Amino acid sequence: MRALVITLAFSALFLVPLLGGPLKPEWIELSYPFNSETIYWPTGVSFEHTKTMQGFTDDGYYYSAYDIRASEHGGTHLDAPNHFAEGKWTADQIPLDRLIGPAIKIDISSKTAQNPDAQLMQSDLEAWEKKHGQIPDDIILLVFTNWGRHWPDKKKYLGTDTDDIDQLHFPGIHSNASSWLVQHRNIKLVGIDTASVDYGQSKMFESHRIFYKENIPGLENVANMAQLPAKGFTVYAAPMYISEGSGGPCRVFALLDCA
Amino acid sequence: MRALVITLAFSALFLVPLLGGPLKPEWIELSYPFNSETIYWPTGVSFEHTKTMQGFTDDGYYYSAYDIRASEHGGTHLDAPNHFAEGKWTADQIPLDRLIGPAIKIDISSKTAQNPDAQLMQSDLEAWEKKHGQIPDDIILLVFTNWGRHWPDKKKYLGTDTDDIDQLHFPGIHSNASSWLVQHRNIKLVGIDTASVDYGQSKMFESHRIFYKENIPGLENVANMAQLPAKGFTVYAAPMYISEGSGGPCRVFALLDCA
Repeated sequence: MRALVITLAFSALFLVPLLGGPLKPEWIELSYPFNSETIYWPTGVSFEHTKTMQGFTDDGYYYSAYDIRASEHGGTHLDAPNHFAEGKWTADQIPLDRLIGPAIKIDISSKTAQNPDAQLMQSDLEAWEKKHGQIPDDIILLVFTNWGRHWPDKKKYLGTDTDDIDQLHFPGIHSNASSWLVQHRNIKLVGIDTASVDYGQSKMFESHRIFYKENIPGLENVANMAQLPAKGFTVYAAPMYISEGSGGPCRVFALLDCA
Repeated sequence: MRALVITLAFSALFLVPLLGGPLKPEWIELSYPFNSETIYWPTGVSFEHTKTMQGFTDDGYYYSAYDIRASEHGGTHLDAPNHFAEGKWTADQIPLDRLIGPAIKIDISSKTAQNPDAQLMQSDLEAWEKKHGQIPDDIILLVFTNWGRHWPDKKKYLGTDTDDIDQLHFPGIHSNASSWLVQHRNIKLVGIDTASVDYGQSKMFESHRIFYKENIPGLENVANMAQLPAKGFTVYAAPMYISEGSGGPCRVFALLDCA
């Protein structure tokens, strides 16, 4: 019966091109480009793009090439669980099916509008569930603080443009929300539109440790989240495939269901 | 009518979970991990992964982090058209829908088995079409030489482990095939399981120039292509999003149709 339904469904989808051209997916870009404005953690090496050649060679053809250098954790990037949890997955160990799949968005932008230290709380998750139903299993959970409106203004986005980490102010995920999620729900990946899963004033990085201990990786500095609905979309997170990486640059994009 | 068919198709797909659990996509990894064995062009900077911290902090929690450095063109990577074509797309300018979509595989492994200088010819494309039908529009075209069986043995994969580029020997795409493709077919992205779109003995990089002039980007050192059929799959190429990049590290994966 299941096979029959699948066959009918795919057959119907394949009819669509005959009826007016193929469905053209509209991908939503959720990454920031890497350049001299890309925001890194105050203690990290920023992105360097070094030209090795640009112009016409002696043989008469055009050629351009560059080298790159950066810390793993800047711009739109992956935190592998190993970043804060000994023995858990490094970047290359995360199965692709934990990085791709149905996703939801929890919007706490009304709380962050007046308070850069606002955090996602358990009560915000409960409020989302009251409206949209229980958070599904194997879901990618994105937290929308609307902090992307400050990108790439480092002072506004991080709270400081100095190296003084005590001055960091931006929203994050409170440990009562991360604890509740790992105990009562089954998410496979968490993302946020700020520089860190934990808020700027965190000293002990509780939510990093709570998620990563359970092999739930993180996405930070996710872009353009305003374009996403509360549910009904698929996220594709494609990190640089670094052996023993604690994370790395990550291309992230999404597709709305039934688009 | 078209809307009705789409609605019926998606409705049927949504029934599937009720009938025995959701369809779980099986992603095929088409990238090599970045590490000290990753193969770069003889003149390029190889991948460097520099530990900045690994262990327990004074505050008692585990933490690991690294810096990365490399040339854009090594390992599984994107060539942006601008790499060999002045004024054409840089890495950040390529629309996502030119990097993701239905794909085909042209297998020339029987030619390369005895000859490392073998190339994809127009006749190979015509032979593929005779068997599988015309190469569809807006397709991603992968060339399978089976050269991945040599990875990461640099001497076997490149033909040399020295910096002498005259000694490079590996298969590629002949200019009569690239010219025919841009003139008579409509491909959006080309990929190969060797270090270069042009074969190792190329001096003028004709196929690079022919494809990139038409804003058709390239994927090089694509992994695990033996797992793909001749047609009936979707490729996702997710390059690092580098402003003005001539290319860069790229995570590539695939999904078989109706899997």
